[in-house]
Amino acid sequence: MSSFDSMWSDLAPVGRDAGTGGYRRYAWTAADAALREWFRGEGEQRGLDVDTDRAGNLWAWTADPDAAAAAGQPGLVLGSHLDSVPDGGAFDGPLGVVSAFAALDLLRARGFAPRRPLGIACFADEEGARFGIACAGSRLLTGALDADRARSLTDDEGTTMAEAMAAAGHDAAGLGPDHAALRRIGTFLELHVEQGRALADPTDGDGAAVGVASSIWPHGRWRLDLRGRADHAGTTRLADREDPMLALAAAVLGARAAAERHGTVATVGKVRVRPNGVNAIPSSVTAWLDARGPREEAVRAVVADVGAAAGAAPVEESWTASTDFDAALRDRLSAALADPDGRPAPVLPTGAGHDAGVLSAAGIPTAMLFVRNPTGVSHSPAEHADPDDCSAGVEALARAVEALA
Amino acid sequence: MSSFDSMWSDLAPVGRDAGTGGYRRYAWTAADAALREWFRGEGEQRGLDVDTDRAGNLWAWTADPDAAAAAGQPGLVLGSHLDSVPDGGAFDGPLGVVSAFAALDLLRARGFAPRRPLGIACFADEEGARFGIACAGSRLLTGALDADRARSLTDDEGTTMAEAMAAAGHDAAGLGPDHAALRRIGTFLELHVEQGRALADPTDGDGAAVGVASSIWPHGRWRLDLRGRADHAGTTRLADREDPMLALAAAVLGARAAAERHGTVATVGKVRVRPNGVNAIPSSVTAWLDARGPREEAVRAVVADVGAAAGAAPVEESWTASTDFDAALRDRLSAALADPDGRPAPVLPTGAGHDAGVLSAAGIPTAMLFVRNPTGVSHSPAEHADPDDCSAGVEALARAVEALA
Repeated sequence: MSSFDSMWSDLAPVGRDAGTGGYRRYAWTAADAALREWFRGEGEQRGLDVDTDRAGNLWAWTADPDAAAAAGQPGLVLGSHLDSVPDGGAFDGPLGVVSAFAALDLLRARGFAPRRPLGIACFADEEGARFGIACAGSRLLTGALDADRARSLTDDEGTTMAEAMAAAGHDAAGLGPDHAALRRIGTFLELHVEQGRALADPTDGDGAAVGVASSIWPHGRWRLDLRGRADHAGTTRLADREDPMLALAAAVLGARAAAERHGTVATVGKVRVRPNGVNAIPSSVTAWLDARGPREEAVRAVVADVGAAAGAAPVEESWTASTDFDAALRDRLSAALADPDGRPAPVLPTGAGHDAGVLSAAGIPTAMLFVRNPTGVSHSPAEHADPDDCSAGVEALARAVEALA
Repeated sequence: MSSFDSMWSDLAPVGRDAGTGGYRRYAWTAADAALREWFRGEGEQRGLDVDTDRAGNLWAWTADPDAAAAAGQPGLVLGSHLDSVPDGGAFDGPLGVVSAFAALDLLRARGFAPRRPLGIACFADEEGARFGIACAGSRLLTGALDADRARSLTDDEGTTMAEAMAAAGHDAAGLGPDHAALRRIGTFLELHVEQGRALADPTDGDGAAVGVASSIWPHGRWRLDLRGRADHAGTTRLADREDPMLALAAAVLGARAAAERHGTVATVGKVRVRPNGVNAIPSSVTAWLDARGPREEAVRAVVADVGAAAGAAPVEESWTASTDFDAALRDRLSAALADPDGRPAPVLPTGAGHDAGVLSAAGIPTAMLFVRNPTGVSHSPAEHADPDDCSAGVEALARAVEALA
């Protein structure tokens, strides 16, 4: 069994829901603790120094990164995250972490000696499934997320992030930008399962199992607070109703129509109905809108259209501007990963946010590799990548390290 | 302080949510136990025999109802329920129970001696908020709800009704029609806050604080299982999506349009989204439809239209045919409650289900009194009845007892 397969088997049961088959690996939970323990074990088995930064992200280093950074040779870091969306798939996140360890094994077997420290990172709370802010670990690291705001974010049970961290043994008092940790990163390279079908497409993907990211679309999350008046479903005349479910319906249909009109995507994936009783007209409905697209103006237009359709002003919960990854790094990787006929690896944009985008926005030379996804499905138990393509991903990471370190 | 006011104050804090101000008095919970204890105390203070039937309904009797029934003088029972919908108001249910005790106090103060036993009933689980079946206590009593089905109903946490009853000290093994308890009821009279504005309307209500029910509209609950495919909200092209939220929107708008077309009411008040993540296209949405109207064919047409709009076959969870209350009893009460000018009390239908409807359908002579609701709002913390109208309700109950017992 390859080291990749062995790590994959070890992770398979952690945080998996028996009913849906999906993963529920939320930040600072028992499942999260098990994943952190797994990461620490894999790092220590390989003789790496494993450490946690102020934001709770995990790092495993082959050599002293502070000394190397002081000597003008900051490290090359591979990695991704291990947490999931509700009922997520096995690949989104873990593929990047497992492939990083497997690439290190491959490089060592080949006798490759990097000129600068190699690091493997596991970012905390990338999906934001529990506290509503995606990439919380990397945003805290760079200062893009304010520490006080992060500490006071609450989950659906009213537990704050500070309380959740404390319960998991991490001191939330230390949150804030971690410049020492940032200085160690000379280059960051995140491998991720593709969350679309560009590589699987015969034309766009050109038969390649691995592609290089060009950019991340501008994207954000907005909350719609739709107010109504609780009333009896059986006795209140239609004309007397203030039913916020009608505004929800308008928002859902408005989001789809606006996305088609402006060439973006838009989704209402989360809804909270109060009191949520069969025979009660709701007193309120809260809906969350996720909108992304190739151009910021188009995304902003969609959000405005949805607000108008729903009759409520969208409240922005997060916004990430367009991220263009380092162009020189992108071209170097695309060339280094050329196929046997010398055709460079495909370069493609994505609509998904990533820790790599957060680090790139903080000025760190950053790149991403995507592994082909035959159906394009992700954030779902049905998310998949073929074993051969996963092997190609590990090989690509190893070649990237050879080219960059 | 009148006995009504004193009882009302005692009940006010039980099961009240500090945040919404609404009541969360669900069957077989701690709040329910406190309400049952209160009922028992009120009955015993007045020297009544308090007993629980096989279905868990509470009864308080002034005299031996079995002996009276055997002698051809079965009792006259007043009462209603104490449980609530999620974030319900203070009046729906409790007003009928408190008014029954207050009417007994008034009759005793006037020296009235009934010719047959007087009973006060508190029905279990009228709202069905926890297990999804309204009037569960009275339906079990009459056999309209199968005992095996009831025992296996589950709440949102997966607890069965049998387990919930056992935890509350009631033996679910004894569920099933309770003919002994039914034989004791010669006549049932339920006082309830009106859940509409007919009495408050200057024309329909004619200035009366109390009206008499003619009928309960046919009504039911249906479940819509809307299936989709979980996927990433940022990376899945609109054309590739199977988003069940769109079907929910169609169902909500379709319900309103169909209700207008067919002259009924229809409501989608409860929704469950899976996995309910901001950046995930849902894998499924479950929605519940409540539909009611003056004619069964119209209600059935609405349900069919909503199913067609949503692209899913509605699953019937409950159905109650039209209930016409005993006509002779209705006319006798309307005359007995005539105003000083001799105008009989107004007679009006309702769209709300009640335990009185269940007993009426089981062949028991049954009537209802409605107390004026100035806004018509119910199933809401804003539900209200004026103190003077509540007093008029107690007086009307007392006069009804004088006329019937």
